Amino acid sequence: MFRHDKRLQYYTPPESPDAHLAVACQELLGGHYGEVSVMMQYLMQGFTCKGAPKYRDMLLEIGTEEIGHVEMLSTLITQLMAKAPLEEKDAMAKSNPLVGAIMGGKNSSEATLELAAMMPSMAIVAGGGPRVSDSSGSPWSGAFVIASGNLLADFRDNLAKESQGRLQACRVYNMTDDRGVKDTLAFMIERDYEHQLHWLAAVRELESLEEPGVVVPVEVGHFEGKERFAYDFWGLSNGTDAATGAWADGPAPDDSGNAFRYLKEPEALGPVPEFAPGDPRLFGTQKRPKKPADGKTTEVDGALPAKA
Amino acid sequence: MFRHDKRLQYYTPPESPDAHLAVACQELLGGHYGEVSVMMQYLMQGFTCKGAPKYRDMLLEIGTEEIGHVEMLSTLITQLMAKAPLEEKDAMAKSNPLVGAIMGGKNSSEATLELAAMMPSMAIVAGGGPRVSDSSGSPWSGAFVIASGNLLADFRDNLAKESQGRLQACRVYNMTDDRGVKDTLAFMIERDYEHQLHWLAAVRELESLEEPGVVVPVEVGHFEGKERFAYDFWGLSNGTDAATGAWADGPAPDDSGNAFRYLKEPEALGPVPEFAPGDPRLFGTQKRPKKPADGKTTEVDGALPAKA
Amino acid sequence: MFRHDKRLQYYTPPESPDAHLAVACQELLGGHYGEVSVMMQYLMQGFTCKGAPKYRDMLLEIGTEEIGHVEMLSTLITQLMAKAPLEEKDAMAKSNPLVGAIMGGKNSSEATLELAAMMPSMAIVAGGGPRVSDSSGSPWSGAFVIASGNLLADFRDNLAKESQGRLQACRVYNMTDDRGVKDTLAFMIERDYEHQLHWLAAVRELESLEEPGVVVPVEVGHFEGKERFAYDFWGLSNGTDAATGAWADGPAPDDSGNAFRYLKEPEALGPVPEFAPGDPRLFGTQKRPKKPADGKTTEVDGALPAKA
Amino acid sequence: MFRHDKRLQYYTPPESPDAHLAVACQELLGGHYGEVSVMMQYLMQGFTCKGAPKYRDMLLEIGTEEIGHVEMLSTLITQLMAKAPLEEKDAMAKSNPLVGAIMGGKNSSEATLELAAMMPSMAIVAGGGPRVSDSSGSPWSGAFVIASGNLLADFRDNLAKESQGRLQACRVYNMTDDRGVKDTLAFMIERDYEHQLHWLAAVRELESLEEPGVVVPVEVGHFEGKERFAYDFWGLSNGTDAATGAWADGPAPDDSGNAFRYLKEPEALGPVPEFAPGDPRLFGTQKRPKKPADGKTTEVDGALPAKA
Amino acid sequence: MFRHDKRLQYYTPPESPDAHLAVACQELLGGHYGEVSVMMQYLMQGFTCKGAPKYRDMLLEIGTEEIGHVEMLSTLITQLMAKAPLEEKDAMAKSNPLVGAIMGGKNSSEATLELAAMMPSMAIVAGGGPRVSDSSGSPWSGAFVIASGNLLADFRDNLAKESQGRLQACRVYNMTDDRGVKDTLAFMIERDYEHQLHWLAAVRELESLEEPGVVVPVEVGHFEGKERFAYDFWGLSNGTDAATGAWADGPAPDDSGNAFRYLKEPEALGPVPEFAPGDPRLFGTQKRPKKPADGKTTEVDGALPAKA
Amino acid sequence: MFRHDKRLQYYTPPESPDAHLAVACQELLGGHYGEVSVMMQYLMQGFTCKGAPKYRDMLLEIGTEEIGHVEMLSTLITQLMAKAPLEEKDAMAKSNPLVGAIMGGKNSSEATLELAAMMPSMAIVAGGGPRVSDSSGSPWSGAFVIASGNLLADFRDNLAKESQGRLQACRVYNMTDDRGVKDTLAFMIERDYEHQLHWLAAVRELESLEEPGVVVPVEVGHFEGKERFAYDFWGLSNGTDAATGAWADGPAPDDSGNAFRYLKEPEALGPVPEFAPGDPRLFGTQKRPKKPADGKTTEVDGALPAKA
Repeated sequence: MFRHDKRLQYYTPPESPDAHLAVACQELLGGHYGEVSVMMQYLMQGFTCKGAPKYRDMLLEIGTEEIGHVEMLSTLITQLMAKAPLEEKDAMAKSNPLVGAIMGGKNSSEATLELAAMMPSMAIVAGGGPRVSDSSGSPWSGAFVIASGNLLADFRDNLAKESQGRLQACRVYNMTDDRGVKDTLAFMIERDYEHQLHWLAAVRELESLEEPGVVVPVEVGHFEGKERFAYDFWGLSNGTDAATGAWADGPAPDDSGNAFRYLKEPEALGPVPEFAPGDPRLFGTQKRPKKPADGKTTEVDGALPAKA
Repeated sequence: MFRHDKRLQYYTPPESPDAHLAVACQELLGGHYGEVSVMMQYLMQGFTCKGAPKYRDMLLEIGTEEIGHVEMLSTLITQLMAKAPLEEKDAMAKSNPLVGAIMGGKNSSEATLELAAMMPSMAIVAGGGPRVSDSSGSPWSGAFVIASGNLLADFRDNLAKESQGRLQACRVYNMTDDRGVKDTLAFMIERDYEHQLHWLAAVRELESLEEPGVVVPVEVGHFEGKERFAYDFWGLSNGTDAATGAWADGPAPDDSGNAFRYLKEPEALGPVPEFAPGDPRLFGTQKRPKKPADGKTTEVDGALPAKA
Repeated sequence: MFRHDKRLQYYTPPESPDAHLAVACQELLGGHYGEVSVMMQYLMQGFTCKGAPKYRDMLLEIGTEEIGHVEMLSTLITQLMAKAPLEEKDAMAKSNPLVGAIMGGKNSSEATLELAAMMPSMAIVAGGGPRVSDSSGSPWSGAFVIASGNLLADFRDNLAKESQGRLQACRVYNMTDDRGVKDTLAFMIERDYEHQLHWLAAVRELESLEEPGVVVPVEVGHFEGKERFAYDFWGLSNGTDAATGAWADGPAPDDSGNAFRYLKEPEALGPVPEFAPGDPRLFGTQKRPKKPADGKTTEVDGALPAKA
Repeated sequence: MFRHDKRLQYYTPPESPDAHLAVACQELLGGHYGEVSVMMQYLMQGFTCKGAPKYRDMLLEIGTEEIGHVEMLSTLITQLMAKAPLEEKDAMAKSNPLVGAIMGGKNSSEATLELAAMMPSMAIVAGGGPRVSDSSGSPWSGAFVIASGNLLADFRDNLAKESQGRLQACRVYNMTDDRGVKDTLAFMIERDYEHQLHWLAAVRELESLEEPGVVVPVEVGHFEGKERFAYDFWGLSNGTDAATGAWADGPAPDDSGNAFRYLKEPEALGPVPEFAPGDPRLFGTQKRPKKPADGKTTEVDGALPAKA
Repeated sequence: MFRHDKRLQYYTPPESPDAHLAVACQELLGGHYGEVSVMMQYLMQGFTCKGAPKYRDMLLEIGTEEIGHVEMLSTLITQLMAKAPLEEKDAMAKSNPLVGAIMGGKNSSEATLELAAMMPSMAIVAGGGPRVSDSSGSPWSGAFVIASGNLLADFRDNLAKESQGRLQACRVYNMTDDRGVKDTLAFMIERDYEHQLHWLAAVRELESLEEPGVVVPVEVGHFEGKERFAYDFWGLSNGTDAATGAWADGPAPDDSGNAFRYLKEPEALGPVPEFAPGDPRLFGTQKRPKKPADGKTTEVDGALPAKA
Repeated sequence: MFRHDKRLQYYTPPESPDAHLAVACQELLGGHYGEVSVMMQYLMQGFTCKGAPKYRDMLLEIGTEEIGHVEMLSTLITQLMAKAPLEEKDAMAKSNPLVGAIMGGKNSSEATLELAAMMPSMAIVAGGGPRVSDSSGSPWSGAFVIASGNLLADFRDNLAKESQGRLQACRVYNMTDDRGVKDTLAFMIERDYEHQLHWLAAVRELESLEEPGVVVPVEVGHFEGKERFAYDFWGLSNGTDAATGAWADGPAPDDSGNAFRYLKEPEALGPVPEFAPGDPRLFGTQKRPKKPADGKTTEVDGALPAKA
């Protein structure tokens, strides 16, 4: 069960409205790597966690924090689209070339007009507020969430999501000079720093519990006679630039003692595919080199009437 | 530019048709973590890579291999739905309880009928072949692909995708006793093993190039006065199970010398949000404690006609 | 900011695993009218609410409760797919014709096998747990959420969502005889009862604050000379069954004193559309009754090369 | 069966092309609450209606009118993107600050260029015409439509959709000074007025047929011992602003004689969830406090090969 | 404007309920190539048609007929899920092996139970009626519709959609022995026959108006020095099976007098791509052969704070 | 299996960065009719082709070429967003009114800023690179791909896709004066010319193999007593403009000797639909002319508790 505290976890309001920035912040809210994604992902992983209690609780505590981040960003976007004094905004646009260029030299403080020109749905649908979608207006999708039941696989995805998420937040941070927005984003970027570290630590803890524990699922090792496929890099491009990387040369990181091998111009090991004829009731095109004399090329089961 | 070799990279045909298994294999083909996803992801990362040539080439070589994996799985699914001798299938269903249970004791070899009963679209739309969708028939989405331009962030996502992908392949491997399918899947599971190792090696190489290099983007460090937010675990649940994990106790893995700290019952640091009134032309509900005497509660700019 | 309590708001575990029921419960979790939808909708409406504080707080309190409902359903689905004693399940299937029929007479307690046969993604992707999608495996979409900034419009949508939601929960309730599941669903159905009442009360309160206050947005009345379009029912089908309903006969519910009117066989009031030629650079097909002698039918601006 | 009349139901052409406005109108055409949504929703509810004939016919008559609204908006959008005299448009932009600001001071009449700069797909894909998508270019989705078979639930959703729809049309109305567009939109806003009234009347008629008839589905009352959950407001936020609303204080609107009750700081009634181990063939992470001596932490059923 | 006739264009009710068939019919209703797609596509092409009036009217007349096909299929699906006498259904299942196999030997006439076991959303969401989605429950998407403004391009797509549509209808026709369903589908298959012919005739008429008129857009011919790329088949696979087809050998069908040419093992004509460094504010990974001594590898513009 | 050649098939780099053009090119890359669509469609059709080897190989050779087109467009988009000298871009914008108008008179060469103002996700998510989505940021969908197993149906769709694709490429070609971009696009437009011809030739070859071979599936002819429905044009609009087209007058193109017929004001042939009551456990609204005396209107099976 959850409870709500009316205060935000951290927040400094924007100095000035800026619909362009509000649109950019939608990516951090409802994009693939945004706060809704990590909120739902950590909560779903936590709600269904069969591992030790400390994993379940950790997932739910961070997931709970992320609900608050959705709250912070929703607040920020709403305030970035409220009316603000005309003069202040103009002054800012003039004194700062970066912001000025983004704003296209417009001298209106009306964020509604900016929205109408740039992302009309945030005005028409959301009345000047955020939506559960990304900065292109594409809706957030439940398909962005993974909770596989395998914590090592999932924590790696969490680490990946936080890496993309902090990267995106830093990019948005660079799109504004608004001190309020920058302060709020800075807090979130620091929390993303912590969360990256956190999943990194958790991943390392899980890896160290298994032997060799780096390949998910750890219970499944090599198949009889197929071990060599697990260490060969198939060189399928001309040139060999890729042959010198850590992934193609030197010991494999699974502590197996095996070394990577770079295969130059490897041969295909399988056959050219052959198919049996399909079910005639599906009317697929079957193999037939030429047209028969009677014009009938397929045996049909009779369920459909013969041609007139 | 690409070239095609008519042979498959590796392949053993199924012993017997099995539409249920064909549907399961759709997850490996067109699911979020399936072969279409990794194919498109590695190709897009490679096509746009601004890093050293070895990264670009490595990405494109693996991406090229993945096109071949899409080919293998498409072949497998098509063959799993072609007609096969009745007796053989029945014998298998009877002798193997796992398969028998999945098949529901059906004694028909007609994969078309199974499809019609389970996933009609694979019969009606694809004529007994694969679709670019997952095992629920949800279409694959371009939103599954990330190519951010930041290789460390992207390689972590690649590692995450391969971890989920091998996990899923192993689960499907356990759903059948067909020796042909098992042999083909075993090859793919071994290649997934290799790819997990491979991204792991690449991630470690990139991390070792920076200092501290584990937090993406590495160029951005801490913000003035906000460093503490990067190492505190906010305990937002009752109980402290999560306080004992590697993420909440001990040194942070960024080699900064900082230690994690578990905050028990932390207080919110932000205010209760306040909003200015929105643009009246958007007809949002404004704050108003009670209804005014004249029935008019909002100043409208006059563009719309007054009420009758 | 949010906090988590490790206990569930209410819960009785299922007596027995049942993958079919787990799939049905996905509709209540991640369908258009499921718990994720109302959770996100109330939270987003609350986070951005510019109305009186009591509305904001009410939205956030109910939204917070709904996070707990997502937790309950996720727990339920996970437990419906865990292993359970064979004998108990079989006994149930035999003694209860409804459940027996749904289960197809299967005598296996293995929910994993049921999943593999019915909704493979819940086994392959989620490892026997819930997903953020509906009972067909279609992902939940952020487009399901509305937070328009106009509380009367939004509360009506909330009432509609709760009406559909309780209806769906009652339908699922009827699909099982498991006393644990029924007890948990009964609690949720009662809460849905309360939430329907609650939005109904809130809608009535908002309607009573305006005059006439039933048509959103209330600030906009009739347009000069167009008032009659607001009370006429256009009879566009043969027959006049619809002429006798409350919507076509009697006083309109806006307290305007106007009465509805049923128009039988109304005439179109507009013209046949005419279009100017489009931009030739877009190569649309322009109006041309016949082919000119020289074979050139469109003036092109010259940006593209002439035909050879 | 349907028939078409070449004339539009009502229409005044735009005075001048305006691609920005055309994009905004896409929300009214193909957005979640646009004309395609209500058209499809009323038609589907009507096609499948099992209630009294008057409901079926009413649904189909309004649904049929809505096809004509899709026609009107498609005509409008197409005309908003056709070429028009340069001088007229410039004059308008200069004399009207609102329009001028939206247009960014551009003095070109070329709607194609505006589209290319703002919503390229309407030029590239649709050749200067509308698409079946919203103002962000997100495709309309069949998931927007509900036809549940329960008319009270569906009519409430219809009322909600018309409320959002009229709100959005009024917002777009405020974005232009084009007298043609305003006249056409005014007609549609009046029809939306009528449709809101109409569903309101239908909802009230249905509610009055049952006792108590306000909670869907009306056939289902309270569960033994759980009635109290139907009238309690769970106060899950700090503070009690929400305690004073109609939803938390006073008689419930179901005519049951029960009163709402506000629960301050309510306790969770359920347990902390516990899960049985999952099927080992799914390779989920099981509860295990520490690593066993032999490095093997999970009993696997043997279907997969042991680790090397 | 549209009008509705209460009678269906053509219809014979099903002899017996059959939820499996109802699910299959969803593909014909709401799949990519279903009736909703062609209805919306022809209407949108007609609403926006700038070509001669006969094209516009033809599009709208067929589009209007398709609304009636959506009505017929919705009626069919609803009736396929209504209750029917138990005995009749059992008799049918026993006497007909095809139907019996699909039904899995179930002896219940309760289509609701079948739905609950196969496509729960049609019971839970739609109350035993159709949805605007395909046979997998994936929602219909506005992205399926094309109305490009170029009639030749669009008519070709119409022909393609009708080809797939009739193919799918024939496949569903083969899945049942219900005489009512077969009679209704037979009518639709005949109408699909007519529509294929119809678009074929329209395509040929448009092609004959231009010279050479087969390549869209016809206004654009060859580019200086690039004509040869328009007739060469690039042989990018090993082997030359494809060299003998009409597409690689003989005169091109554009009446240009040019012949196709098969290029065996063609060489790439372009360079290896090179990228300039990206904007440092986006934190992409730049080309850098080795790690600099000071650990700083990127010049950042200073907007973000230096690392601690 | 596939192999990669590091060189592009053909390529001339852009003279200057242009984020607006980069966004437009996204439609050619990841739109419904873009290169990802044809790549995936031809590959899937080829991977599963059961027809003669020459069809399979032809499909895979063209599909393989299309992977290279995805590569070319990805390269182009990435280069269109890299930094370029300020002066050059400004000069271009000033000297060319078309480009100048699109650019809105901006004098900055920073493509990043343009992106931030127009399509922020390409900066924030993709770091100044392409995404697998269209020019509105909507993700590419696997639902765009058809591989039905029937080659005539599929080749017609291929022809339709290439027709739309070349049309779109020509439109984008007209949006720029950059000689590099124009040269690269010209190559692609020529290849699209070849591909249109190619599918046209293949379609004609397949049609000539059957008799009458123009209606898919060719195995299914007319149904007893329903042949007339295959040649009648139902005139469902007022007026008879459509009666004079090739589709309504003259011989049908199926070589059957039948002629088209235009039906003026045709009558519906079916009944008004009637539905049996639905399953009461689904709580649909049943037909009931008035409210019974006891307030109970539906017989429920007893699974749910009676109302209090």
